[in-house]
Amino acid sequence: MRISQIGEFGLIERLKNILSSQLIGDDTAPIQIDSKTFLLTTDSMIEDRHFKRFYPPQAIGWKVISINVSDVVSSGGTPLYALVSLALPDLEVSYVDALYSGIKTACEFYGCQVVGGNLAKSEKISIDVFMMGKAERFVSRAGARPGDKLYVSGTLGDAKAGLELLLFEKKHYEEFELKLIERHTRPTARIDYIKHISKYANACIDLSDGLSSDAWHISNMSRVRLSIKKDKIPISQELYLFCKKHGKDPTQYALSGGEDYQLLFTHPKDRYNPFLDMTIIGDVEEGTGVYLNGELMHPEGFDHFKL
Amino acid sequence: MRISQIGEFGLIERLKNILSSQLIGDDTAPIQIDSKTFLLTTDSMIEDRHFKRFYPPQAIGWKVISINVSDVVSSGGTPLYALVSLALPDLEVSYVDALYSGIKTACEFYGCQVVGGNLAKSEKISIDVFMMGKAERFVSRAGARPGDKLYVSGTLGDAKAGLELLLFEKKHYEEFELKLIERHTRPTARIDYIKHISKYANACIDLSDGLSSDAWHISNMSRVRLSIKKDKIPISQELYLFCKKHGKDPTQYALSGGEDYQLLFTHPKDRYNPFLDMTIIGDVEEGTGVYLNGELMHPEGFDHFKL
Repeated sequence: MRISQIGEFGLIERLKNILSSQLIGDDTAPIQIDSKTFLLTTDSMIEDRHFKRFYPPQAIGWKVISINVSDVVSSGGTPLYALVSLALPDLEVSYVDALYSGIKTACEFYGCQVVGGNLAKSEKISIDVFMMGKAERFVSRAGARPGDKLYVSGTLGDAKAGLELLLFEKKHYEEFELKLIERHTRPTARIDYIKHISKYANACIDLSDGLSSDAWHISNMSRVRLSIKKDKIPISQELYLFCKKHGKDPTQYALSGGEDYQLLFTHPKDRYNPFLDMTIIGDVEEGTGVYLNGELMHPEGFDHFKL
Repeated sequence: MRISQIGEFGLIERLKNILSSQLIGDDTAPIQIDSKTFLLTTDSMIEDRHFKRFYPPQAIGWKVISINVSDVVSSGGTPLYALVSLALPDLEVSYVDALYSGIKTACEFYGCQVVGGNLAKSEKISIDVFMMGKAERFVSRAGARPGDKLYVSGTLGDAKAGLELLLFEKKHYEEFELKLIERHTRPTARIDYIKHISKYANACIDLSDGLSSDAWHISNMSRVRLSIKKDKIPISQELYLFCKKHGKDPTQYALSGGEDYQLLFTHPKDRYNPFLDMTIIGDVEEGTGVYLNGELMHPEGFDHFKL
C-alpha cells in the first residue's frame, strides 16, 4: 500500500497510533512546565512544493516563520523561540543572506527569536522551522461546543488567487493583483488575535489547507456538526475583481484555497469582538460533519499525498 | 560568491551575524524558563547524504533520534520532547511504519517522546528532528580551561569504517565488520554520561564531524590550545582488525571519521570517573589551535559544503 492510497491525514493517524501519542494531531503540542503551558510546533517549506526558486528569498524567509507563528496563534499562544533547519544546494551566499534577512524581519515583527538551527546540503532548498511558544490556555481543535458560532478572521481565497497570478509570470500586474500575490508570498500570522483566541475560543485552527478541509478537523476532533452559510464567507474586493476578470467563482477559491493563514474558530455569539476583522460564517451544532447551506461539504483543500 | 567558497562553518558565522544571536553555534541553545534551563536543538538526515534508500528504515529512525539526543547530552542535558518533520516521496506505507517504529524504540530507550511533527511530499526522504531537553547546568563548547584534561568517551573511527563496509554491499560480513556497520547505522547517544558531563565538564561537544574538526570548535570557542597525544586516542579492536585487513591507518579513521557520536570534553584530572569508558587524550593549555603530537592539526572532518 502506497502513501497516496491513504493520504497525508491517513498517514498521520497511522503514525499517531505507532507512537501511541495523544499530543499529535493539533496545530501545536502543548507541554506543561511548572504549571505553565508551552507549545511546540514545526512546519516546512520545500522548493517546487511550496515555492519556486525565482521567488524573492526574503519573502520565503518571512513566510516560513509566519506559518509556524500561525500554528502557535491558533493554539492561543505567543511565539518565543525558533530553530531553522536548512537544506540547500551550493547557492550564491547572497541568496541565503536574503532568506535569513526575511527570517529576521519576521521574527522581529512577531516578537520571537531564532536560537539555533542546522545546515545540510541537498539538491533542492528545504526549510524546516521549529517553534516554541507560550500560552495562557491551550486552545485545541477539539473544544467546539454546540451553540457556538463559527468564525473566520480576514478574507479567504486570496492566497490561491495570488499563487495563480504569480505563476502566470506576467510582465505587468495591476494593483489588486499585486495585493493578491502578496497574500500568497507574504502572509501575516494573526498575532492581533492572540488575546481573543486565548481568552474566548473553544476551538481554533489556522487555515493552511483550505476551509473545506480544515473545518473537518474541528468537526471531527470536537465531534460536532458545522453548518456554514455560503454567502457569509468573507471575500476580499481583490478576489472579486480577480474572479470577475477570469470568470471564476470566488466562493470556490475561499473553500478550496490553501495558505490563507486566517483563523477558523468557535465561541458563543456574545464574545464577538467588533475591533477584529472577524465574521460569523455559521453554527456549531450537535451531530457530525461539515455542511455548506445544508449540503455535506467535501474536503477540497490540499493533501500532500492524495492522488 | 558560492556557499562552497566559505563552507558550512563560514555560512553559520554569517547567519549568526545576520540574526545577531549569541545563542547560535553550540550543540544546543539554552533557554531559561523560571530559572530552569531548557535546551533546544535540531538535526536532520537526508537521503543520499546521510543514508541510502536500502538502509533498514528502523535504523534510520533510531539514528535520527540518537543524533539529536547526542546534542542534548553533550550540553549536559536530558532529552524530553521531539518533533519529527518528514519529507518523503510516495513510498510504501510499510517503509514509514518501520521508520517510525525505529523512532519510537529510540524514544523509549532515551526516555523522551515525540509530541508532534509535519509531513510533506518531496523527491527524496528527509527527516528533521527538533528536540527539547532539560539541564541542571548548560555545558557549552566555550568553557574549557587551561589545566583541564581532554577526554573522549568510547572509541573513535568505528562509524567511518562501518560506512565503508556498508557501501561495499558484500554478501557476507564477518562478525567484527557487522559491529562496525552497527556503529554507523545504529549509534547510541551517550546518555550514560549525562550526570558526569552535567556535573563536571567545563566544555563538551559530540563528535559528529570527526575529532580533527570538532576539537577546533572547543579550541576556538574556549580560546584555548588543545594538545592531543596520538597514541592515547582510543581505537576499538574491530577498527584495528578492519585496518589490518585493508592496510589502513586506524588513527586516520579516528581523526577524520564522522558520526561516532562520542563525547569530547574537558575537566580537571581529579574528576576522572573509572566507571565510564573515558580516555584522557590530551591537555587543555593556554594558547590557540589544536595540536597532535606538537603539530598543528588540520580539520579533516565533514563540511557539508566545502569543495
